[in-house]
Parts: sequence; structure tokens; C-alpha cells
Amino acid sequence: MQISRLATRAGEWLKGAGRDADIVVSSRIRLARNVADFPFMSKASAPQRRELEEMLRGKIMAASLVPDMFYLSLTDLPAVDRLFLVERHLISREHASSDGDRGVAFGDNEAISIMVNEEDHLRMQAIRSGFELEGAWETLNQIDDILEKDLNYAFSSKFGYLTACPTNVGTGMRVSVMLHLPALVSTRHLDKVVNAVAKINLVVRGLYGEGTEASGDFYQISNQVTLGKSERDILDSVLNAIPRIITYERKARESLMVENRRQLEDRVWRAYGILNMARCITSEEALHLLSQVRMGVNLGLLPDVDLKTVNELFVLTLPAHLQKLAGREIGPEERNVVRADLIREKLSGGQGT
Amino acid sequence: MQISRLATRAGEWLKGAGRDADIVVSSRIRLARNVADFPFMSKASAPQRRELEEMLRGKIMAASLVPDMFYLSLTDLPAVDRLFLVERHLISREHASSDGDRGVAFGDNEAISIMVNEEDHLRMQAIRSGFELEGAWETLNQIDDILEKDLNYAFSSKFGYLTACPTNVGTGMRVSVMLHLPALVSTRHLDKVVNAVAKINLVVRGLYGEGTEASGDFYQISNQVTLGKSERDILDSVLNAIPRIITYERKARESLMVENRRQLEDRVWRAYGILNMARCITSEEALHLLSQVRMGVNLGLLPDVDLKTVNELFVLTLPAHLQKLAGREIGPEERNVVRADLIREKLSGGQGT
Repeated sequence: MQISRLATRAGEWLKGAGRDADIVVSSRIRLARNVADFPFMSKASAPQRRELEEMLRGKIMAASLVPDMFYLSLTDLPAVDRLFLVERHLISREHASSDGDRGVAFGDNEAISIMVNEEDHLRMQAIRSGFELEGAWETLNQIDDILEKDLNYAFSSKFGYLTACPTNVGTGMRVSVMLHLPALVSTRHLDKVVNAVAKINLVVRGLYGEGTEASGDFYQISNQVTLGKSERDILDSVLNAIPRIITYERKARESLMVENRRQLEDRVWRAYGILNMARCITSEEALHLLSQVRMGVNLGLLPDVDLKTVNELFVLTLPAHLQKLAGREIGPEERNVVRADLIREKLSGGQGT
Repeated sequence: MQISRLATRAGEWLKGAGRDADIVVSSRIRLARNVADFPFMSKASAPQRRELEEMLRGKIMAASLVPDMFYLSLTDLPAVDRLFLVERHLISREHASSDGDRGVAFGDNEAISIMVNEEDHLRMQAIRSGFELEGAWETLNQIDDILEKDLNYAFSSKFGYLTACPTNVGTGMRVSVMLHLPALVSTRHLDKVVNAVAKINLVVRGLYGEGTEASGDFYQISNQVTLGKSERDILDSVLNAIPRIITYERKARESLMVENRRQLEDRVWRAYGILNMARCITSEEALHLLSQVRMGVNLGLLPDVDLKTVNELFVLTLPAHLQKLAGREIGPEERNVVRADLIREKLSGGQGT
């Protein structure tokens, strides 16, 4: 498969569908698994890594987990292609920047991806548009069951699944949702949410997971504890917390609409105007303005703009995507120009301005 | 005449026509005159002021100086109407804010206005679109000649025309051009112009004359000396200086187009985008953005935007104009909303967005 082919569209999880998609961009679950017959990654020799990757790749591809499953080796993949996969949330930043034999399998709609030889031997994820954790879990649980039949997972009857890092031991499960919380940010109520969430052992992170800053009003909320709880418990803890945050954000939006409607409209329309007209835009500014426009679309203030288009632009305007789309290496300054061109084209429905 | 009738359009001097209209917004000449049979304004009693105003009004209106000449008494005119006349450059700020019997006469196209009982008994001005000082002078000189036949001007064979303030004695003449110098401002070369101009006894002022700050990249350049020179000398000193400034500004624009075209386009299009989309805009921001758009129009970067529309918006979006157009008093915050609405309507050719 040509990676470039993916650069014109985003994964299905960005289509803006599913429950509460105005606030919940996506729901994601990942499981960390290791194979008992091999050492953990940090202890594995190069030949062991190679053998492990080949074995896992074979099992994954043989299992027909999803239609059109595709396996991509990262070992010799150019840096821009690896960054491209990070931008699409198909692999982690760590998987992109590490070395040695490793790869990723994913289906055509990108709802499932399985990293091989990341921190753990296997990191599988299911990702869906909107607040659809149950559906994501159902799919991922099935995939895990299928692979488990054929693989001897490292498992302790006392602790559960064994993982490279102790924070993942037990279920090896991380449940996370990506939330768009512009109204809580602009009314300065986000801290309350972060504090409340911390008390129930959930963590708030930025757009690209651990160690990244929240940007463009996007926040990932996920479980911290994997040990001593069942998958169902973990899933429920997130399932219970998110609707309250959704309600907070929705109330904040309503209060902006009632008390500051003109200012809100002004902010949204200006963002739309700049995105439609700029000839040069950084990825940071684009993220910020797209966030405003996204809220505007969801509040019915921008009736002619499509949520899917806006969602996709968050990914399509990132550095590696712009370069894959253009089919060549592009420096940061020129990227700002190419980014502005792409945004104008997409927002005008492909007619350009 | 209903002042409100004027609120939908600007004076003819803003039509964007005339020589070098891309840089020279307008050319203006004013003459200060006093009548020998009355004391200067500062010494005139209230009855004398009244008598003087009645006499001058009668002479001006009888002289058929221009078609549709109209006389407006400022004595009991509401503050918003007086501000409205200032915004149109028909009267000075001082004339608006002083008290006692006073007024202004102006023709329908606003090319001529004559203030009665300002600092001097008469302050007459001719204003034209573009770099058209000769034409303005021709008209004003004729008007002055006509009035002089019928009025006993205070005149000294040694000093020339006598005026209330010594800085105007002699010719009583101020020649000024309003320049739009966005490229010299953005390339930081404006100081050179200001310094060069000061050396030849010209003064640089802001948009509304003495004591006002330059804003939106607009600068008025005018003569300082009125004494010991002929009208022709004064006119020539400005006529000689301005083409050099025009050349500087044009070169600065060319260099922006060659060296920073993308950034320039970005700036112009963003300004246009915001003006087209904002739901709330201060008069300061509007001025700044309209200035960018005006340069864009003149450089051919915004082919669908009309220079006259942009020029007119500089005046139509000012506080008193917005209130006269709406037909009611509007506070500053709501004015920002009404201003944004008007700009969107005008820029979209009256269709609104």
C-alpha cells in the first residue's frame, strides 16, 4: 500500500459520527500484550526482535481480524512516513522514534491498529468516532480473544497480563476518549473538570497522549489504573465520568450562547474568515482556529460547514500529512503556505478561493 | 436638509478618483479670513457673534458659490450631529466643541465647506479626491475672490491677511494632502519621510488634523508657514514634496510584492476575511484592517473589491455615522456590532452575509 494514498482523507474515527460527537471526537481502547516465549522488548536481542516481529506479523495477518488488514514494517520506513502514522494515531510517538524491527497492522478504515514490538510485544487499539467505547471494546475484545487462541500471552494468575512497564500490568488496558472542550476552556472551568477527574483516578492528557500538551481545546481523558480491576470496571469508570464532563461542556456552551452570543459568533466567524482567507498559517494557529470553527459548527452557527471536513482538517494539515499529500519534503515555512492552501480548498468544498 | 440623508454615502472626495488616488486619499486647501468690521472671535461678544454669523451666512448663501449650497447652524445642533460633520471633514473638532453662534455652509458634493465663527470668522476649504491640489486651489481661490468683493477682509499690507492665531497670518492658507502609507509603515521607513518633510517646513499629522494621532497608516502632510510666502509658493512646496513621498511608498509596495508577496497577500486576505466575517469590531480595528484591504485593492490583490467602497467605509463606520444611519443613539459596545454588520453588507455589495 502507498501511504500517500491515505493522505487525502482521515481515518473513519474522524468522520464526526457517533454518540455526542459534538464533544467526544473519538473513543479509543488499547490493550498491551506480551508473548511468554520471548523476553520483554528491553531484554530482547536484535535476532529475537526480528523473530518475534515475523511471528506476530504472521499470526495477525493469518487471523483475518478485519477486512483489508495491512502490515507496515517501520524498520526502514522514512521519518516522515512514521510521523504520518503518528499524526493518524495509528502508532505512538515512541513506536515511531524507537529502532529495531517493528511494525504496525491496520485495517483500511483505520478503526483497528496493532503495533508490533512497541514497549510491549503487542499494543492493539480500537478507535471509533464519537462516544462509542462499548463498540470499540467489543471489537477489540474479539480481536484479543482470537489472537490469544494462537499466542501464549505472558499472564500471571495473581497479577493478570504482564507488561514491560508496571503501570500496565493487570488488564493492560487503557480506555480513553478525546474531548473537545472549547467552552469549558473559554469560561475557565476546565480546572474543575481536571481536578474532579483526578479524584477518580482518571488522567487528562493532550492531543497526542502522554507528555503532550493539550492544544486547540482538545483533551484526552483515560484511566490510570490497570491492576486489580476488571476490564469492565475500567470501562465503567470512564463510561461514568465522561457524560458528566459532556454535560458541563454543553452547559458552558449554552451559557455562552445565551450570555455572550454576539462575542461567540464573532469569535467563530472570525476564525472561519481567517481560515478561508489566510495564505500562510502555522499548525498551531490552524488548530486553534479549527477548534473555534468546530464549536461553531456544533452550535449551528456555521450552517454551511461540515463537521467531518473540520475534523479531517485537524489531521490533514499536520506536517507529515502535508508532505505526503504533496509527494515531497517541504520545510516548515513553505508548509505554512501549503497548509493555508489546503484549508481554503477543503472549506470551500474543493473549489479553492 | 436632514443630516441623516448623508449617512448612507461619503463625500465626493472619498470616491477614490483623481491622480495617484492609490496613495493620495484627498487634497485639501483651507483659507482663514476675518472681517475687519468685527473683533476677532475671542474678543467678540455674544451679540456680535450673532450679528457676524447672520451677516456671513447671508453673504455666503447669496453668492451662489456652488450648486445646492446649504447652511447649517451648529449653535443648537446635537453633539452627535456635530461629530458627524467632523467625521466627514466638513468642520473641525474645535468648531464642533466650541459654543456660541456658529455654523457651516457646504455644497451637496461636500467639495466646498465654509465654517463661520470658527477660530477665525471664516474658514473655507476645498477638498478633492486624489492628488488634485491645483483643482482644489482654483475652486477655493474663486470662492475667496467672490466673497472678498462683498466683505471687508482684515488685511495688512505688511503682513497680509490677519488671523486670530499668528501661525495663520499672511496667506491664511493651509495646503494638505491625506496620504495612505501602509508600505512605508510596515517596512519602517516612515520616519525618514517625516524627517525629510520636517526639513522643508511641512508637518505630518494624523487623520483628523492637529493633535490627532496617525492611525490606519493615514497621514496628513501640510505646510506650516503661512507668512512671507505667496499662495503659489506654499502650494508649490507641497506639490513638490508629495510626489517624492508617493515614489517612496510605491517603491516600498513593490519591494513587499517582490520580496514578501506571500506574507503581504496573507495580511491583506486575512484583513479582508475578518472584515467579511466579524460580528463585532471596534473602530480602531476596522481602520487598521481597512487600511490593509485598501493597499490590497491598490496592488491588485483583491480584484473584486472596489476602492470607493473601502474609502467610504473609513467614514461610514465612525461612531456618529453609525448612529445617524441607525437613526438612534447607540452605545460604544453596540456600535461595534452595528459597525461589523455595515462592513459585511458593504463588502458583499449590499447582499449581507
